[in-house]
Amino acid sequence: MKLYSYWRSSCSWRVRIALNLKGLAYEYVPVHLVKDGGEQHSDAYRAINPMRTLPTLEVTEGGKVHHLGQSLAILEYLEERYPSPALLPAGPFLRARCRMLAEMVNSGIQPLQNLSVLQRIKGELKADDKAWCMYWIDRGLAAFQAAAQETAGTYCLGNAVSFADICLVPQLYGARRFGVDLQPYALLTRIEAACASLPAFQAAHADRQPDAVPA
Amino acid sequence: MKLYSYWRSSCSWRVRIALNLKGLAYEYVPVHLVKDGGEQHSDAYRAINPMRTLPTLEVTEGGKVHHLGQSLAILEYLEERYPSPALLPAGPFLRARCRMLAEMVNSGIQPLQNLSVLQRIKGELKADDKAWCMYWIDRGLAAFQAAAQETAGTYCLGNAVSFADICLVPQLYGARRFGVDLQPYALLTRIEAACASLPAFQAAHADRQPDAVPA
Repeated sequence: MKLYSYWRSSCSWRVRIALNLKGLAYEYVPVHLVKDGGEQHSDAYRAINPMRTLPTLEVTEGGKVHHLGQSLAILEYLEERYPSPALLPAGPFLRARCRMLAEMVNSGIQPLQNLSVLQRIKGELKADDKAWCMYWIDRGLAAFQAAAQETAGTYCLGNAVSFADICLVPQLYGARRFGVDLQPYALLTRIEAACASLPAFQAAHADRQPDAVPA
Repeated sequence: MKLYSYWRSSCSWRVRIALNLKGLAYEYVPVHLVKDGGEQHSDAYRAINPMRTLPTLEVTEGGKVHHLGQSLAILEYLEERYPSPALLPAGPFLRARCRMLAEMVNSGIQPLQNLSVLQRIKGELKADDKAWCMYWIDRGLAAFQAAAQETAGTYCLGNAVSFADICLVPQLYGARRFGVDLQPYALLTRIEAACASLPAFQAAHADRQPDAVPA
């Protein structure tokens, strides 16, 4: 498999964690979101991902090469194709709670802080993109924590890592980057610390990627 | 089951379609997103949905009442709990393509046009919320159509209705509402017309809900 990724893209980071947790080897293909106006806008990348977003997972199915976009769709694919270790809990109800938490990040926070949105907020609307981000991240994390309280153990859903943790960890990195005060989110930073002790999360960290730019 | 819904909420609409397709009866509980500053911000609603978004599905599992938010998580729950008729295709790869299309709407378009975002674009940033919306919807539909071309039959994935169609149809209503020209999207409007002939889609339409406001 090939993963088109950018070191600091939180959606790419989610898929890196899942691939590592499932012990799946992959080739890392960096796509620079900023250089030359953004490599994701090139004709070559648009041909494999018309939404011009990261990540894209290249897989071979039935002898044919295919491209999958959208991190949550990719996580579900990996879960169905490589079920062990499971990254969703057992039973429809807990699975729904897990997916709900994942979606609170995936559709509730991240889309509002992604680069193409910030470029419009700052470039076209001449507004404060950092303040914009902080508002949505803070609002979203408050809701995420309130919901996670009902199911959390060591991780968001009991004592097994799941999609919810996979979405949470890169989002907390983004929260710090944009200056959100994480003091009120003790449950979430505790879960983050538990994840940070796992090799799969360590190897997926933005700073550990081949295209990472040292601070 | 109870569905907390608003007639014009595209995310509520998705769940209404799925419930209808699976033949599941539910009680409709209207939550007015605008009246009195928005009923979704009330303490009562926040207690069941801390993200303050619609829809919320109330279900009873193990003799206990639970609340599920996030439309895609709810669709997956319904699919696992009530597998027939299936709303995801067979096989991990096609399922991934289906979820990818659904996520292109769910995380790629809708979060940028939802009411809380438009209120900030217009109210705080004093910018043109309609132009903002049109940009993201048009960009997203172009990508959706390019991706759907690879799998479409009568519907987005061959000849069976799936999550992708369920997300597409309310998004096209939103596109018209915000003035997006749908002329370039012949494939998508053809799929929309096929869906519109199905009673489950008809009954889920915004205008058919008990809280609908006639134009």
